[in-house]
Amino acid sequence: MTLESKSQRGGPLDKFREECGVFGIFGHDSASAHVALGLHALQHRGQEGAGIVSFDGKQFNAERSLGLVGDHFNDPKVISSLRGRAAIGHVRYATTGGTTLRNVQPLFAEFDFGGLAIAHNGNLTNAATLKRELVSKGCIFQSTTDTETIVHLIATAREPRAMVPPATVSPGVVLRIIEALKQLTGTYSLVAMTQNFMLGARDPFGVRPLVLGQLDGALILASETCALDILGASFVRDIAPGEIVIIDESGLKSLKPFLPVASKFCIFEYVYFSRPDSFVEGTNVYGARQRIGAELAKEQFAPADMVVPVPDSGVPAAIGYAQAAGLPFELGIIRNHYVGRTFIEPAAQIRHLGVKLKHNANRATIAGKRVVLVDDSIVRGTTSVKIVEMIRNVGAKEVHMRIASPPTTNSCFYGVDTPMKDDLLASSRSVEQMRQHIGVDSLGFISLDGLYRAVGFDARDAKQPQFCDACFSGEYPIALTDFHSGEQPAQLSLLAERG
Amino acid sequence: MTLESKSQRGGPLDKFREECGVFGIFGHDSASAHVALGLHALQHRGQEGAGIVSFDGKQFNAERSLGLVGDHFNDPKVISSLRGRAAIGHVRYATTGGTTLRNVQPLFAEFDFGGLAIAHNGNLTNAATLKRELVSKGCIFQSTTDTETIVHLIATAREPRAMVPPATVSPGVVLRIIEALKQLTGTYSLVAMTQNFMLGARDPFGVRPLVLGQLDGALILASETCALDILGASFVRDIAPGEIVIIDESGLKSLKPFLPVASKFCIFEYVYFSRPDSFVEGTNVYGARQRIGAELAKEQFAPADMVVPVPDSGVPAAIGYAQAAGLPFELGIIRNHYVGRTFIEPAAQIRHLGVKLKHNANRATIAGKRVVLVDDSIVRGTTSVKIVEMIRNVGAKEVHMRIASPPTTNSCFYGVDTPMKDDLLASSRSVEQMRQHIGVDSLGFISLDGLYRAVGFDARDAKQPQFCDACFSGEYPIALTDFHSGEQPAQLSLLAERG
Amino acid sequence: MTLESKSQRGGPLDKFREECGVFGIFGHDSASAHVALGLHALQHRGQEGAGIVSFDGKQFNAERSLGLVGDHFNDPKVISSLRGRAAIGHVRYATTGGTTLRNVQPLFAEFDFGGLAIAHNGNLTNAATLKRELVSKGCIFQSTTDTETIVHLIATAREPRAMVPPATVSPGVVLRIIEALKQLTGTYSLVAMTQNFMLGARDPFGVRPLVLGQLDGALILASETCALDILGASFVRDIAPGEIVIIDESGLKSLKPFLPVASKFCIFEYVYFSRPDSFVEGTNVYGARQRIGAELAKEQFAPADMVVPVPDSGVPAAIGYAQAAGLPFELGIIRNHYVGRTFIEPAAQIRHLGVKLKHNANRATIAGKRVVLVDDSIVRGTTSVKIVEMIRNVGAKEVHMRIASPPTTNSCFYGVDTPMKDDLLASSRSVEQMRQHIGVDSLGFISLDGLYRAVGFDARDAKQPQFCDACFSGEYPIALTDFHSGEQPAQLSLLAERG
Amino acid sequence: MTLESKSQRGGPLDKFREECGVFGIFGHDSASAHVALGLHALQHRGQEGAGIVSFDGKQFNAERSLGLVGDHFNDPKVISSLRGRAAIGHVRYATTGGTTLRNVQPLFAEFDFGGLAIAHNGNLTNAATLKRELVSKGCIFQSTTDTETIVHLIATAREPRAMVPPATVSPGVVLRIIEALKQLTGTYSLVAMTQNFMLGARDPFGVRPLVLGQLDGALILASETCALDILGASFVRDIAPGEIVIIDESGLKSLKPFLPVASKFCIFEYVYFSRPDSFVEGTNVYGARQRIGAELAKEQFAPADMVVPVPDSGVPAAIGYAQAAGLPFELGIIRNHYVGRTFIEPAAQIRHLGVKLKHNANRATIAGKRVVLVDDSIVRGTTSVKIVEMIRNVGAKEVHMRIASPPTTNSCFYGVDTPMKDDLLASSRSVEQMRQHIGVDSLGFISLDGLYRAVGFDARDAKQPQFCDACFSGEYPIALTDFHSGEQPAQLSLLAERG
Repeated sequence: MTLESKSQRGGPLDKFREECGVFGIFGHDSASAHVALGLHALQHRGQEGAGIVSFDGKQFNAERSLGLVGDHFNDPKVISSLRGRAAIGHVRYATTGGTTLRNVQPLFAEFDFGGLAIAHNGNLTNAATLKRELVSKGCIFQSTTDTETIVHLIATAREPRAMVPPATVSPGVVLRIIEALKQLTGTYSLVAMTQNFMLGARDPFGVRPLVLGQLDGALILASETCALDILGASFVRDIAPGEIVIIDESGLKSLKPFLPVASKFCIFEYVYFSRPDSFVEGTNVYGARQRIGAELAKEQFAPADMVVPVPDSGVPAAIGYAQAAGLPFELGIIRNHYVGRTFIEPAAQIRHLGVKLKHNANRATIAGKRVVLVDDSIVRGTTSVKIVEMIRNVGAKEVHMRIASPPTTNSCFYGVDTPMKDDLLASSRSVEQMRQHIGVDSLGFISLDGLYRAVGFDARDAKQPQFCDACFSGEYPIALTDFHSGEQPAQLSLLAERG
Repeated sequence: MTLESKSQRGGPLDKFREECGVFGIFGHDSASAHVALGLHALQHRGQEGAGIVSFDGKQFNAERSLGLVGDHFNDPKVISSLRGRAAIGHVRYATTGGTTLRNVQPLFAEFDFGGLAIAHNGNLTNAATLKRELVSKGCIFQSTTDTETIVHLIATAREPRAMVPPATVSPGVVLRIIEALKQLTGTYSLVAMTQNFMLGARDPFGVRPLVLGQLDGALILASETCALDILGASFVRDIAPGEIVIIDESGLKSLKPFLPVASKFCIFEYVYFSRPDSFVEGTNVYGARQRIGAELAKEQFAPADMVVPVPDSGVPAAIGYAQAAGLPFELGIIRNHYVGRTFIEPAAQIRHLGVKLKHNANRATIAGKRVVLVDDSIVRGTTSVKIVEMIRNVGAKEVHMRIASPPTTNSCFYGVDTPMKDDLLASSRSVEQMRQHIGVDSLGFISLDGLYRAVGFDARDAKQPQFCDACFSGEYPIALTDFHSGEQPAQLSLLAERG
Repeated sequence: MTLESKSQRGGPLDKFREECGVFGIFGHDSASAHVALGLHALQHRGQEGAGIVSFDGKQFNAERSLGLVGDHFNDPKVISSLRGRAAIGHVRYATTGGTTLRNVQPLFAEFDFGGLAIAHNGNLTNAATLKRELVSKGCIFQSTTDTETIVHLIATAREPRAMVPPATVSPGVVLRIIEALKQLTGTYSLVAMTQNFMLGARDPFGVRPLVLGQLDGALILASETCALDILGASFVRDIAPGEIVIIDESGLKSLKPFLPVASKFCIFEYVYFSRPDSFVEGTNVYGARQRIGAELAKEQFAPADMVVPVPDSGVPAAIGYAQAAGLPFELGIIRNHYVGRTFIEPAAQIRHLGVKLKHNANRATIAGKRVVLVDDSIVRGTTSVKIVEMIRNVGAKEVHMRIASPPTTNSCFYGVDTPMKDDLLASSRSVEQMRQHIGVDSLGFISLDGLYRAVGFDARDAKQPQFCDACFSGEYPIALTDFHSGEQPAQLSLLAERG
Repeated sequence: MTLESKSQRGGPLDKFREECGVFGIFGHDSASAHVALGLHALQHRGQEGAGIVSFDGKQFNAERSLGLVGDHFNDPKVISSLRGRAAIGHVRYATTGGTTLRNVQPLFAEFDFGGLAIAHNGNLTNAATLKRELVSKGCIFQSTTDTETIVHLIATAREPRAMVPPATVSPGVVLRIIEALKQLTGTYSLVAMTQNFMLGARDPFGVRPLVLGQLDGALILASETCALDILGASFVRDIAPGEIVIIDESGLKSLKPFLPVASKFCIFEYVYFSRPDSFVEGTNVYGARQRIGAELAKEQFAPADMVVPVPDSGVPAAIGYAQAAGLPFELGIIRNHYVGRTFIEPAAQIRHLGVKLKHNANRATIAGKRVVLVDDSIVRGTTSVKIVEMIRNVGAKEVHMRIASPPTTNSCFYGVDTPMKDDLLASSRSVEQMRQHIGVDSLGFISLDGLYRAVGFDARDAKQPQFCDACFSGEYPIALTDFHSGEQPAQLSLLAERG
């Protein structure tokens, strides 16, 4: 039995990659314009495609597009066609393979109660199992996203009798959504919208982030606080794990319909995914990364002439490391910000092109120096090998690599695009073997306890870890149902379609 | 209660417009290339978009595109991606409004038994009623086509116990499709494909055409015989009204699962829709149109110097008229074949631009002459007014208009895009009033009996007309369920989406 | 020494093809909208690309586009950006090869006297010779069109002293243009525009057409009268061979600066190029084609059951033939009007696809009949072979082919895209050899004298033919300078550029 | 008399903007692939469009495209169509207005000696004067670039007798190019290519950079060394001011045909234009910027809690400042790297959107702190105002702005896109007035002497400055011919064309 992770779809990925960002606003005259800006601020969470659905009191209006938010939604005609005071949106990760507009969210469907648009960040671990059941009941799947599974569950859900819904807000519809969510295993931060209300929901473990904001009396749901900042909106609070919020003209109502469990926020959001200026779960990401760097300097000090980050993701930790170690911080690697689409390697004689399209070693700074090179993580290790070679080629005397996360030994199944376990450098190698592979004079990772300390805990609770740290520890807090049932992964379809 | 016909979607249509063409081939190495060519030959049945789905033994492969068949499917890369020895395709009518790729067929869905692709020509008159029921059962609609209703009926159908299916061909699946079709009211000529077989079906009244052909041992289903001719395929026979054919590796099996009813082939296929070189229901269309012209000359002779067709649709009837009347046939109106997309009228001073973009009066031929002007039908009458004015402006002495069909007094609900009844010139005017409106010296229509005679019957059977002639007679042979139930027309959706 | 004609660029062309159409209007508020419509009416003279340049009193505004006029210039934004009361435009022929926007006219250049836009129909036979001289003087060529040669000649021309220009109209500029035109050998119908006036010019032999029209006080220049009709403009007169007209706010002035020569209008304009509704050189084209057909019936009568045209170009002659021969006229071949871009033949087993994409034999009409098949001309003969085979395949008893022009034995170098001489079927074969090649029971061409009779002359004047008939006779009235000097054809460039 | 600088074309620019980058390689099997990569590394010098011309021994091959290098030239089909062992390329700056493919370089033209492709970085100050003369001689201009002026000068130049050319390399052609260059006033770093050789040239003052590199025996010319690094090519030397190098199969020849003058390299290349990893005129740019920061800390120390750069251009100077001042370096502003095309401000209530699309203040880091904010320069000041407001809004206690260049008081006319003098904040304000305008607690600029010290001189030589520093000093070392003659700027054209 093989556990297939999603990155088979893409090329030789050498970063973990957040799969989505969501945004919604209810009660604002420029709803869709604000969604477009919010999605732009969340662009780091997904660059494959973006979509917005608005509701104008009569009709839902949708626009979906492949590419960056600013490529399509900067068109005033597009924005003005998305009429209405409520709108939700979604950005989606990039893969090199079968990208199709059909999979760009929000998904929209019509129910007996009217329309529903839904945008999803996360990954269901029982999607294939649920899909098989739904298809056998007569449901038809037209996309290859988990999200369509949620929509079918809502469509086929019936209002439970026992539970008493909140009196004012479309009780039947909300209860059917809850009924659907109860069947899900996996992770989700959802933003949905009907003709009457906007809904936000986080899975009981709260693996993926979701925050609540406010602007001019309108309420906002977003993956990260940086999407509030771009609008000048104020941060209200995090949506709690297992919480469902219903936002309508009468304001916000909070439901907690699930059995409470210990929360398991994704610790990798601090390491890499979230934007440095965001606050997630109450903690500023830049500050956390600096403390990770400082902790790393304590645990893995290296005598050197300077600290050099692998830009841009290694910069905050490198600053923290340099400050704690008392070493100068230097831009020893310069990044080309115009990368855009990938160049095809045009000729065999141009080696290591991939990394050079994006990075160049700063010879004048590095030549003859002992360098501490700080990166956020090592995934496949291919980039590290090339960067180290590049730095050595310009004459670095020593290269000491320091990594602002523990060795990533396991794939993620909770909404992150990661290589298969066998392709993770750390999955089958000791630190010394990795050091030799990468070709550095020394290699050091922060410990998992050190990482916990940097984000505010004394140490990892061995029995009940405070975060989901499965990629480091292999302890998966949420059942991998499809995997254990040998189910075909949900995203594989009988249909191959382009465009 | 207002009966809304479909042409509200489009601009001020002045032709009845066939809504679709279908094509399928089973058992040929170049299956998708042949489908592309067949669809090209059926392009007159729909210019909005085209799609092809093939099955390669493992996977279904789909390509859909807005625009003409030759704009997209002439790309060898596209054709070679549509692997497999079985493929079906569809061309779809043009509207000026909300055209979207989402509605381009064939539709594809996954079921418990595997994948199914389906292409549909026709219109269901109980689609809204069925959709309401399906949505209340939890079905989700993602397009605005009738065809999706059929797919959901198949998905939710269960195998009936009583009936014994043919032993060899995927009996359960076929029975479920039959079960679904039994719930439909309206018209359909369908081509569908599963992993095991291709299926063709015509509604019990046989309103829309569907023929069977053969090429190199492969079997073909197509809307018209002209799609066989382009491939050099031979015509086998018409699919009978109410017949379902199953084509698989073992050959063809025919089922007739419906209660037999008197057939009602659309008589307008002879008047306008079908291509002149096609044979429909055993009759050559060009010959039928010539006989209509000859019959028209007998019924409505006008002393004149020449017979001039409104090109191109009036040409065969005008030839028949000229031959029967002993008058010269002349191209008094020249057509511009490069019309493409519609010009926006750029300035108020350019009047009657619409007709001039396509037609120009041939002054040298017409000036000073008495002209019999032959057209296939009058719908709104707007084009007729402009063409007559154009002909008078170049000096025609007399204009006698002759129409190769009876007055069109009623909308069609059986798969043809027609204006609302109130917008049909003949719905509220006598022939004399129409004559004055159009501005001709005389106006004559063929009688309904004359039309029947031209296509091979002595006269129309008043109790049981041999054709569907509802647009002329107002006698609708198939129940207009949605209309009588006051149901929202099925094609209206809560979602407005572009692109 | 090889005489290379232009069609090497394209695919296996089987028609002579007019290379361009021009249109200009001076003094109208909707100038550019009218140019767009005029070009649309001239679309049959060129489908590769179209361009419009307007002058708004301060600035010239340009739009050029590949494709059909209606694909780009139906956009109101495009038209409204082409401000001004004077505008000229151009349509350009189609080739399958290296089409580039750089070659789409009108050409624009800045001179010491200001801007000049120019649109050209015709072909210079000393362009390469002139280009070599101009380049050696320091001129830089950026396109591969003859027209740029004219522009450079204007740029480098100096005002001649001797001649007295008309007092009021930009005399120096006009004289420089005349000076430039005097250096040209070959054919041209030009429309040009400066900040002060619009200019029309025809070469001294008047090979290509150019007419003058009037609308609401504005003056119009166009290749054919059909471009006047679409606007409701009135025809004033033909521009005379060797005439230059200057149109400005004060009206029209006519100059005849060249030594007078006997005019040589292209007789093929009657056979095929011009639209049937146009009047060229005072003669209606449809009428001329009917008379050609009638003359052909007299010269080459065949006992038969019907006359069938090769659509659409053979239709008028076939009508004339049928009327003169007393045979029924029948549409025995049906044309598909949605041809668009060419299909790639997708598989070897689909033979004769090319012709079937466009034509289908009407089996019911033709089977068992003796058919006179009328076409306008035979070029390579490839299409004729396929059409005859197609007609035989549906059971025609006899096929008698009649051609409404004499055998085309020579290439054209005067603005028409023709195959090389060796590729012309008639260049090396007797009529009997051609008959066998095409596979017909009999083959007949109209005589050159018969053609002259049909267009209004008793017979061809052997010493001084009234038309250019070089493609039939091999007598080239205008010197083929580049050819005789062994000069590299002007359109070949050192630069290969796409897009 | 108004001195119009180029930025009138663009929007409200708030950066000086380098106008172009050039690259060429001679003698490499993958010539065009290497040009594409070199241009990608030079993308910061121009983002509007890119072009490559290669020569394959027979023909020149060209591709030009709007947008980024990697958007078009990553297509293997494009690269493989650019055959040949010699190729040159160009990237062009971005304007928001009338961008057109016609202006994308390299320019190509045919001469009596064959083809010539040319790519130009710089700006001619006598282009309008030269253009007027050339037009009066009969030259035709089809683009609006200075470069076309150079091409016409080459076309019209004649070989001077007196000078003896180097024996082996196309002496006549080279002499004509020299003759043309001698007529130019202004700045240029050129790369050109004929059928026989590649040529590099820098103007006598050497204002814009140009370097020579080597790879696998092939010689390379590039604007900056970072374009060598991406290929793994080695740096050979700078092309000297006033030097012309001729590179052909026999190697490199150097000519110095101009009267020697003191060189005036653009000091702003160190401040902002060049990439930090490049060496220009022998000095590493990152190191120079760090020293500028350190010098600035000495001259303009501010007591504070941290140093925050305006990313990305302020980073190296901020690092240097922080190190010299002994203050922590912090990322107080986070940049969004997905900016792409500009968003239209969708609603009035979204204020200061422009800066927020790109930057967000890092509240957790800044709140309650005294901040030294380091930027490379102040142009209009609009961005500074918004960034300072953004930082104050998140609670900065004090904001001390430090600028790594002197006040920019004058426009540039030497190949940089700058606002008009009146729009430069410093042109009419004291530092105190600027401080109030920007809203900071203190504002300090490095002195011009300090800037000279940082790039390696003891002080600015008052009589003969070692650099062009006109934007700071107002002393223009090269004549502004067009300006003093009141000539229309060369880039204004009579023609407005899109696309």
